[in-house]
Amino acid sequence: MALSDLIRVERNEAGIQSVLGILKQRFGERFQTGHDVRVQHAHTTSYIPNQPPDGVAFPDSTEEVQEIVRVCAEHRVPIVPFGTGTSLEGQTNAAGGGISIDMMRMDRVLEVNAADLDCTVQPGVTREALNTYLRDTGLFFPIDPGANASLGGMAATRASGTNAVRYGTMKDNVLSLTAVMADGRAITTAQRARKTSAGYDLTRLLVGSEGTLGVITALTLKLYGIPQAISGGVCPFPSVEAACNAVIMTIQMGIPMARIELVNALQMRALKNHSQLDYPESPCLFVEFHGSEAGVAEQAESFGEIAAEFGGGPFLWTKVAEERAKLWKARHNAYWASLTLRPGAGSLSTDVCVPISRLAECITETEADIERMGLIAPIVGHVGDGNFHTMVLMDQKDPREIEKVEEFVSRLNLRAISMDGTCTGEHGIGQGKMTFLERELGDSVDFMRMIKATLDPQNILNPGKILPAKH
Amino acid sequence: MALSDLIRVERNEAGIQSVLGILKQRFGERFQTGHDVRVQHAHTTSYIPNQPPDGVAFPDSTEEVQEIVRVCAEHRVPIVPFGTGTSLEGQTNAAGGGISIDMMRMDRVLEVNAADLDCTVQPGVTREALNTYLRDTGLFFPIDPGANASLGGMAATRASGTNAVRYGTMKDNVLSLTAVMADGRAITTAQRARKTSAGYDLTRLLVGSEGTLGVITALTLKLYGIPQAISGGVCPFPSVEAACNAVIMTIQMGIPMARIELVNALQMRALKNHSQLDYPESPCLFVEFHGSEAGVAEQAESFGEIAAEFGGGPFLWTKVAEERAKLWKARHNAYWASLTLRPGAGSLSTDVCVPISRLAECITETEADIERMGLIAPIVGHVGDGNFHTMVLMDQKDPREIEKVEEFVSRLNLRAISMDGTCTGEHGIGQGKMTFLERELGDSVDFMRMIKATLDPQNILNPGKILPAKH
Repeated sequence: MALSDLIRVERNEAGIQSVLGILKQRFGERFQTGHDVRVQHAHTTSYIPNQPPDGVAFPDSTEEVQEIVRVCAEHRVPIVPFGTGTSLEGQTNAAGGGISIDMMRMDRVLEVNAADLDCTVQPGVTREALNTYLRDTGLFFPIDPGANASLGGMAATRASGTNAVRYGTMKDNVLSLTAVMADGRAITTAQRARKTSAGYDLTRLLVGSEGTLGVITALTLKLYGIPQAISGGVCPFPSVEAACNAVIMTIQMGIPMARIELVNALQMRALKNHSQLDYPESPCLFVEFHGSEAGVAEQAESFGEIAAEFGGGPFLWTKVAEERAKLWKARHNAYWASLTLRPGAGSLSTDVCVPISRLAECITETEADIERMGLIAPIVGHVGDGNFHTMVLMDQKDPREIEKVEEFVSRLNLRAISMDGTCTGEHGIGQGKMTFLERELGDSVDFMRMIKATLDPQNILNPGKILPAKH
Repeated sequence: MALSDLIRVERNEAGIQSVLGILKQRFGERFQTGHDVRVQHAHTTSYIPNQPPDGVAFPDSTEEVQEIVRVCAEHRVPIVPFGTGTSLEGQTNAAGGGISIDMMRMDRVLEVNAADLDCTVQPGVTREALNTYLRDTGLFFPIDPGANASLGGMAATRASGTNAVRYGTMKDNVLSLTAVMADGRAITTAQRARKTSAGYDLTRLLVGSEGTLGVITALTLKLYGIPQAISGGVCPFPSVEAACNAVIMTIQMGIPMARIELVNALQMRALKNHSQLDYPESPCLFVEFHGSEAGVAEQAESFGEIAAEFGGGPFLWTKVAEERAKLWKARHNAYWASLTLRPGAGSLSTDVCVPISRLAECITETEADIERMGLIAPIVGHVGDGNFHTMVLMDQKDPREIEKVEEFVSRLNLRAISMDGTCTGEHGIGQGKMTFLERELGDSVDFMRMIKATLDPQNILNPGKILPAKH
C-alpha cells in the first residue's frame, strides 16, 4: 500500500465543527484556524503529504490541556500534540484532521533540584533553552538530537542523538512525566526518586508513544554535572569497516566516549565543499570525551592507539574548546553541507540502528545500494550505538523520485531488521515507518494495539500513527 | 485492611483440578504436587503467609511455557512464575492457588555477542552463573541485588542493587525480552539493537511487571567490559547527614562511582560483632570505583577529599583485590551480621527510595522512629540512588510484633512518598506494598489496571499482586 493511502484516517466532520466552535469561544486568540498556521503545524520535514489540523490551540497549563482533551473526547475529535515540529516521520500530521495542541507557551522550567541532579519542565521548553537556564548551576541536560527540539517532543519520540552512547536516550533520562490521558485525567507517572520498582513503568510506556497514549504536559529530567574537561578530535579511516572495528574495540575497552560519530566519504566531501576544511575524503570518526583533565587526555590517547591499530589516523585532538569547536564544526554542519551535493533539492532523513557488530556490513551494503540506485545520500552515524542516518537528496514533488526513495528506504529498513536491528533508532515510527513495525516486531504489535485501544478507546490521540491497521 | 485479607484471591477449584490432571499427564515427573515443593515455591522471605500453588511445573522451553499458559488460560487457572524465590514482597505466593512455573531448568546461556556487549539467556540463569559463563570473555553483567537471583526474576521485579549508581537497574540493562502472554502467544519485545524508537516500549512494560503481564522466557542483556582496575574503600562519618552530603557532592562532581553504600551506626555495630573488624561504630560509606589504573586512583583521591570536607575519615582505600575484599567483606555480610543483633529472630527487609537531597532526613527520621518504637532495625543503603533498606528483626509468628512492624513499614513508606520518593526502589510491590501504590501514584494506578485487564483479561497471570482492587 502506498504511504499516501496508509496514512488516511476518516474525518468526523460534525465533531470537528462542534469542537472548533467551543475552543474558539474558550481560548479566543489562543485558538487559531488560519490556513498558514494549520499547515505549519503539520510540517513533516519529508515528502509525506501535509495533513493540516482544523485548528491549533495554545494552552498555558496542564488544566487547559485537560479542557481541550475533554472537549475533543466528548466529540470524538483527534488531538495532535505539537512542539517544534522537528520530528521526521510525519508525527505532527493531523491524519484525520482535528486539533493540534501547540506546547510552545508551556515553556517554563518549573524547578531545578541541583542536589538531586534533576529538573521539572513544561513540554515546550527546548533543550537549548533548558541548558541556557541551567548555565549558572554547573549542570546540563545532555540529550542532543540535532534540532533545538522541545523536551516534550523529544520524550514523545524517544529521541537521542550524538551523545546517547554516554548519556543514554530520553528513555533513560526522563524520571517522570505528567500526561493528560484520553479521558482528560492528568497523571504523574512516578515520583522524583532516581529509581523505583513501584508498578508498571508508565513513564517508559509514554516515552516514545508519539502522542498516541497521552499528551505530555510536564517532565522531570535527569541532569548531569558539566564535565571538568572535554577533549575531542577527528580521525580518518581507510574504510567504514576499519572505523567500525575501532568503535567496537573502543567500547569493549570501556573507554567512556561521550560522542563517537561516523561520517562517510560522501558526507566528508560535502563537509569539505561547505566548510573548506582540510580533511581527507575518507570515512572519519569524530570523537569527544568527558571527564577529569587527566581522564580525557588518557581517553583520547587510548582511542588514538586503537584507531592506529585499525589503520586510522592521523588522529587530531585537543582539550581547547575553540579548537574542538573548529574540528567538530564540520560535523555540526552536516545537514547544510549535504544540501550542497544537489543544489535546490529537498531531502529525506531516515535512520536505522543495528548491533554494532553488523554496522560496517549494514553501512557498506547501504552505500552500494545508493550507488546502484543512482541516489545522492550521505551517511552520518551515532556509531557507538549502531545508529546511522541516511539523508537522501530528492525532489519531493516528483512521484518517480518518491517511489525510488521509498524503495531505497524500504530496502534499508528491511536490511537493518534482518541484521537484528530496528527500522528506527531515534526518529520514531510516525507515519513513515508504519509499514515496517510488524516486520520488525511481529505479534508484539498486537499487544501495542491492545494497549492503545484500552488507553484511548475512541482513538483520538494522534490517530494514524505508529500502529498500522490490522490486516 | 490487614495484609492477610488483602492478599486473598478467589480459587477456581474446578479449573485447578482439571489443569492438575492435564499437566501431570503432559509433564510427568516435571510436574510436582507434593506439599513440600509447593510450600517451597511460595517462600516469601517475610511474615507474609505462605500461599502454596497447587502444582509446580518445570518446563524446558518457551514452547512448553506456552503449553502450560494455554492450558491454564483455557481453565482460567492462575500462573505464578518462579525463579530462585528470593523476592521479598510475596511475589511468588499463589494467592488464588494455581500453577507455579519453575524456570530453573531453563538455565542456558543462549548466545554471547562479545562485539555487541550483549547476551541472550533463559530466565533461570542466575547472575552468578552468567558471570561464571562469561569469565573468559573479559565481559561481565553488573547488576547485583545481593541474592544470587535468576535473571528472569530480576527483570520481573526491576531489581538493581549496589552498583546501580553506575550501571543502572534491570530497566536499563534488558535490551529485549521474550515473554509468553496470557493468551499463550510468545512475543519478543525488541531486536538486539542498542536503542530503538520503534513503537511502545513493551520491554520496559514487562520489566517490573512481576509476572502479572507475561511470563519471561528469554532475555537479551547488556554486558560490560571488566574494568581494567577497581579501587575501593571504607570511610566513617560523624553522622548520616555528613555521609549523605558527601554522596551528593561526589555525584555532583561527576565522579563515576561504581558503588557507594551507606551503613548506619547500628549496622556497623552488627558488622563488628560478626566479623571482629576494627571499624568505628559510626555511619560509614563503602565505595568502589571502576576504570583505568590512573582513573580509579584519581577517583578515590577525589572522594577522600570530599569526605574530609564533610568531616569524614580516615578513608582507607586500596587497588589490591584481596585488601578490597577484606574491607568490603563486612558490607557483604550485613544480612548475617544483622541477625546477631537479636539471636533467633526472623527479619523483614523493606526498601524505599527518595531524592538524595532528602536522604539524610529520611534515614534520620527513620532511625528516630526505630528508636521510639523499640525496634531493632539496622539500615544499609545504595545511597548514590537515594535507596535504602531497613532490616527489621522480628518474631514472624507474633501477631503483636507483626502489627508493630506493619505500622513501622507503613510510616516508612508514607515518609518516603511524602519526600517525593517511592515505596520501593528495587524490591517491587508484590503483596507487601500493594497498599502504598495508590498513595504514591494516584490515578496512574487506574491506567495500570486498564493495561492489566486488556493484556490479561482473565486475570490469570500472578493475580493478587501489584494492583490492589479498586475501592
